Amino acid sequence: MAKKKLNIGIIGGGFMGRTHSNAFRQAPEFFALDYQPVLKTVCTRSAEGAAKFAANWGFESSESDWRKVIERKDIDLIDIATPNDTHETIAVAAAQAGKMVMCEKPLGRNAAEAERMVAAVEAAKVPNMVWYNYRRVPAVTLAKKLIDEGRLGKIFHYRAKFLQDWTISADVPQGGTGTWRLDASVAGSGVTGDLLAHCIDTALWLNGGIETVTGATETFVKQRKHATTGQVADVKIDDASMFLSRFKNGSLGMFEATRYARGHKALYTLEINGEKASIFWDLHDLHRLQWFDHGDEGRLRGWRSIHITDGDHPYMSHWWVPGLQIGYEHTFVHQAADFIEGLSKGQAAAPTFRDALATEYVTDAVLKSAASKQWEVVKG
Amino acid sequence: MAKKKLNIGIIGGGFMGRTHSNAFRQAPEFFALDYQPVLKTVCTRSAEGAAKFAANWGFESSESDWRKVIERKDIDLIDIATPNDTHETIAVAAAQAGKMVMCEKPLGRNAAEAERMVAAVEAAKVPNMVWYNYRRVPAVTLAKKLIDEGRLGKIFHYRAKFLQDWTISADVPQGGTGTWRLDASVAGSGVTGDLLAHCIDTALWLNGGIETVTGATETFVKQRKHATTGQVADVKIDDASMFLSRFKNGSLGMFEATRYARGHKALYTLEINGEKASIFWDLHDLHRLQWFDHGDEGRLRGWRSIHITDGDHPYMSHWWVPGLQIGYEHTFVHQAADFIEGLSKGQAAAPTFRDALATEYVTDAVLKSAASKQWEVVKG
Amino acid sequence: MAKKKLNIGIIGGGFMGRTHSNAFRQAPEFFALDYQPVLKTVCTRSAEGAAKFAANWGFESSESDWRKVIERKDIDLIDIATPNDTHETIAVAAAQAGKMVMCEKPLGRNAAEAERMVAAVEAAKVPNMVWYNYRRVPAVTLAKKLIDEGRLGKIFHYRAKFLQDWTISADVPQGGTGTWRLDASVAGSGVTGDLLAHCIDTALWLNGGIETVTGATETFVKQRKHATTGQVADVKIDDASMFLSRFKNGSLGMFEATRYARGHKALYTLEINGEKASIFWDLHDLHRLQWFDHGDEGRLRGWRSIHITDGDHPYMSHWWVPGLQIGYEHTFVHQAADFIEGLSKGQAAAPTFRDALATEYVTDAVLKSAASKQWEVVKG
Amino acid sequence: MAKKKLNIGIIGGGFMGRTHSNAFRQAPEFFALDYQPVLKTVCTRSAEGAAKFAANWGFESSESDWRKVIERKDIDLIDIATPNDTHETIAVAAAQAGKMVMCEKPLGRNAAEAERMVAAVEAAKVPNMVWYNYRRVPAVTLAKKLIDEGRLGKIFHYRAKFLQDWTISADVPQGGTGTWRLDASVAGSGVTGDLLAHCIDTALWLNGGIETVTGATETFVKQRKHATTGQVADVKIDDASMFLSRFKNGSLGMFEATRYARGHKALYTLEINGEKASIFWDLHDLHRLQWFDHGDEGRLRGWRSIHITDGDHPYMSHWWVPGLQIGYEHTFVHQAADFIEGLSKGQAAAPTFRDALATEYVTDAVLKSAASKQWEVVKG
Repeated sequence: MAKKKLNIGIIGGGFMGRTHSNAFRQAPEFFALDYQPVLKTVCTRSAEGAAKFAANWGFESSESDWRKVIERKDIDLIDIATPNDTHETIAVAAAQAGKMVMCEKPLGRNAAEAERMVAAVEAAKVPNMVWYNYRRVPAVTLAKKLIDEGRLGKIFHYRAKFLQDWTISADVPQGGTGTWRLDASVAGSGVTGDLLAHCIDTALWLNGGIETVTGATETFVKQRKHATTGQVADVKIDDASMFLSRFKNGSLGMFEATRYARGHKALYTLEINGEKASIFWDLHDLHRLQWFDHGDEGRLRGWRSIHITDGDHPYMSHWWVPGLQIGYEHTFVHQAADFIEGLSKGQAAAPTFRDALATEYVTDAVLKSAASKQWEVVKG
Repeated sequence: MAKKKLNIGIIGGGFMGRTHSNAFRQAPEFFALDYQPVLKTVCTRSAEGAAKFAANWGFESSESDWRKVIERKDIDLIDIATPNDTHETIAVAAAQAGKMVMCEKPLGRNAAEAERMVAAVEAAKVPNMVWYNYRRVPAVTLAKKLIDEGRLGKIFHYRAKFLQDWTISADVPQGGTGTWRLDASVAGSGVTGDLLAHCIDTALWLNGGIETVTGATETFVKQRKHATTGQVADVKIDDASMFLSRFKNGSLGMFEATRYARGHKALYTLEINGEKASIFWDLHDLHRLQWFDHGDEGRLRGWRSIHITDGDHPYMSHWWVPGLQIGYEHTFVHQAADFIEGLSKGQAAAPTFRDALATEYVTDAVLKSAASKQWEVVKG
Repeated sequence: MAKKKLNIGIIGGGFMGRTHSNAFRQAPEFFALDYQPVLKTVCTRSAEGAAKFAANWGFESSESDWRKVIERKDIDLIDIATPNDTHETIAVAAAQAGKMVMCEKPLGRNAAEAERMVAAVEAAKVPNMVWYNYRRVPAVTLAKKLIDEGRLGKIFHYRAKFLQDWTISADVPQGGTGTWRLDASVAGSGVTGDLLAHCIDTALWLNGGIETVTGATETFVKQRKHATTGQVADVKIDDASMFLSRFKNGSLGMFEATRYARGHKALYTLEINGEKASIFWDLHDLHRLQWFDHGDEGRLRGWRSIHITDGDHPYMSHWWVPGLQIGYEHTFVHQAADFIEGLSKGQAAAPTFRDALATEYVTDAVLKSAASKQWEVVKG
Repeated sequence: MAKKKLNIGIIGGGFMGRTHSNAFRQAPEFFALDYQPVLKTVCTRSAEGAAKFAANWGFESSESDWRKVIERKDIDLIDIATPNDTHETIAVAAAQAGKMVMCEKPLGRNAAEAERMVAAVEAAKVPNMVWYNYRRVPAVTLAKKLIDEGRLGKIFHYRAKFLQDWTISADVPQGGTGTWRLDASVAGSGVTGDLLAHCIDTALWLNGGIETVTGATETFVKQRKHATTGQVADVKIDDASMFLSRFKNGSLGMFEATRYARGHKALYTLEINGEKASIFWDLHDLHRLQWFDHGDEGRLRGWRSIHITDGDHPYMSHWWVPGLQIGYEHTFVHQAADFIEGLSKGQAAAPTFRDALATEYVTDAVLKSAASKQWEVVKG
């Protein structure tokens, strides 16, 4: 019997355009899905670039004006993989046109934008989701299960950091392709929205809401040439951002993100200390979960390095055999599969736009605290 | 301009059928190739299974008689992903029909079979390759470069082992789907041909020829039920196999494979100690290379854990961005891409059938030594 | 030629009494010192306990009143290894009696006490030192050298934490032997003075002064039985303490200490990210230093795990041979040796009382900030 | 009540003289022993050197003729810490004089010497022990307990290697102080007796007897200058040695030692794979034990890194507090303490001379096999 089709239009052909395209291509090979995702069209600003991208990834067509994609009747799902300053406009238009909407993180440049995006998809009652992909690293998904089962007991501490080192050189420009993340007008913020947002999304999912924060940010390189204008201009993003927090469940949080941690490319780490057990995970070895169980026999207690490649680990029965690891891109495949399964079940897969808005409230509070030098209450 | 097509027929729809299918699907998305691989047909013993596999992976058709695949005019490449006892017959027939041939490892059940396979492809002058995929783990490829550049200096020691634990239970049957590797008539040998062969292929590539070996094998569980007959029968494969060796370059080798190493799923490790530097790699963290350079300043010498995810690491510029790891299946994608690039260049990519024959000479010598309890000279 | 003698009276016979006694016994065996330390007397509240301790460790005598030790003419050095609430009184009396003074950390229960202690030893012009022993872990000492040589370049980030898990159970009492650290009247504070103080001392040494902090503390278990009175009473110490900071050199700091991190016994970790290189160290593998050097060839960059056991590593030429690690107690031996070498050179070894006072200013600011919920300026 | 005294004469003032002296000094501080070890005298070839050593370590006297030490009435225990070629003569003479004898490993240069040493101590019925110190690394002792308790079940594999890199340079001389281990006439053999012997002693203790072996040795640098004669001479020791073995319990063994493994200073590693559990340990992190328990819940199975610093770990209640590691020298302290406790109990602590003879039978068989190129049966 022929599967139903899910006709997809992807807006954006950069790094995230690639990961999303791959996700929709791979998902039906490895997961039994009711819908067959169809790569109908991809849209980038350059018609030539769009055509090339489409040819490479097997899209049926290409576009250079995203509004045309939204107007197309043959598109079910608009998937936004563009820089942050365009998320709101595209998402709202897509929702109003009755399309399903998926959006690369962060949802908006700030909570105000994100709120309008939530309002739009909820008014339109369209399925919606944000690509906070790290929830679907099998090790992280397993952590979620363990916490929900009560295996950690009462939680005392949550720690997360996301460390990179790619902007240490003062020669890295701001603005332009590949470096728009350094341009505050495009990105909204620096590492707070780009990296901390990942840490926060996972934290809210694993450990519940954050009540208050006190934070600080720093811009180590004060001026950079702008890639498009060629002018040296003040850098307005945060190069580094850190905050202390109190969760609703009484636990303490420490969060940090930076692009000035020499030696770390994309080291997202998280650790949770509970009364009965603790968990540690890091993105540089994403296929492992560190687990300490106080219930183990005393003399044999130790941190276990669990190689998350077995059939009884989340998602892993869909891949290879025990011992054979998967990588970064698979988290997007899992998310695409879960989105589609959600359609079949009539039950939205998380994180929805509303879920992602909660992260924006935290990042806004962190930036506000960095400016006010006060503890700030997180909205919501 | 339309690409040339490479029309592929895959024989076998098990675990390796999946990895090969994925490889040919993914290669052109990530590598700029002159040929577009086309999944023309897949063949498994069950017509129904073949159809289902074809539908899942996007093959244009399916077959249940491999001879028909070879007869088809629209097939350029026969890719063998069946159990070992069928490799020779299929490969020889394919070569005689003028098809390119790729074959899952080990090439044959023994060197005699492998020699006939080499003879067939060389007589037919058809491109041919064996899926010793671990050569194309980026970390292993980098190791090869470093050795070839002389960065290790004279080599003293080579160590490799491949440890699994999936047959410890006496309840695992021999024969049948998924467990044919325990049936000597199908597999040829046990871990020697299955796991040690990987270690040997890499070793010959990195460290050159092996002259002599002394080995020992063991079958811990002496009898097992046969999955197809239901009869309890003597187990004739080796559960564990180990050997000492002398390489042509004067270095010493230690090799071991087993399916009785509790706690290890697929732990292929290799270490090379040279005069100037040493290398360590393991499959459970395949995205890392351990590197010790004696040329470093004395007080700061130490083993470096290199996260092989940067653009200047082999193959990695084709994937994501620094810090984001790839996994097991990518080694097959690399091999598919290299095979196709070889076609473009008119230069066969290694390992060819002849390269793989050298591994068979070593495994034969190991098994001979295990029986003779003597050092044996490796042929070739 | 007979060595000069350094006659020592140790006050306190608990855990720290043992480490100090061992340090003075071992130092002259492994270091060529001008002074021979002589264990003249040990003093504990119980005469019987003191006698037993003295017999075990080879002290010539024992006392149960510390004032008598100070009065003794045959004592050159008073070494304080008692709970925090007695440090000031003993140290001031010793200094006024013209004795050299060594004191277990933290110097006082707060900066006010510590200031009076500094005033006393400086007025008396007696050699003085505080047992912040982790400066003399060879790996940490090497880190200091590397920083001072400019090998890290400009520093961006400093992170330290000290994680324990021994007070999670509500059954652990406060007060009394072994648990006085939970009694605020004796300890002054909880983990801030006990654990964070170590992190801060090392940080000030490695990375210079801290200007401002914002912190938070938590007491997870609100009431505990008091070991001496038997009464259940409010717990007034901090179970966990964390703060953000800005260093004078422009770098950002994150610090945390807790006794509620399940799975960690004494995990003091520190990481420093500089423009050119980064360093990581942890107490659970104190004989290793992790080093990342951006100056390494690009494709071979990685974190090095340096096994700090070679003759060209700080202190290590005094011990065994390469590859053979030392442990915790050796840091005290190094400190005892350095104190004595300081006497020979007429140059006080750090950290002096004044150096340790700087740490008290930070811990006071952290506790003040935790109460005020404001950023606080660090005195000094 | 005054303790009984154990009057000790140590023969040898090199590296091992230091470790033994320290062991006897430290043991009574940390262990409650019935006997007080007394460092009566130390003997080295140079009277001046002996006097200096005695002064440093607190010996009451010094000697330069070991026969005089044996003649002394005030000596109870002769402890041999000299090069291998003197072990037999000194030990036999000491036993014949009725002294207790402790001897640095290996017992003799070969089994013939060792047999005569065993005969001597057994004829004299004197307490005797060999310093195979690695049995008393707490992690290794714990491994022994776990095996004896049946926690691993049936054993399939035993692997051990001892890797060093200090003789790679052809400029390292043979013979003389510090390099006598390269002179076959003094050392007996190369790494086989020096390093493999450690691996074998532990293996026999943990896994029982070895029946047969096949081995190979290599001398990479064929000629070296002799440190005492100044003449370039053939090197007769083995630089590297490796062997396969079959244990009496049916398990397979792989052993290797070398001084040509660049990057490893003293990397003794061992791994044991059993039906139910596996163990890994290495000397470069001697305070950890890696433990995999198949009895753990499936999805949470993983190798545990046990930080062996708790009170319920062997020997550790005598040292510091949880989380604080000990080092290399402590293994000797434990052995000294156990020897003395054995005296109190009238029960010899292992390994006795007879226990150590079993190791010599294996090393002899390995060297014989390396020459014969045959499997050899291990005597005993």
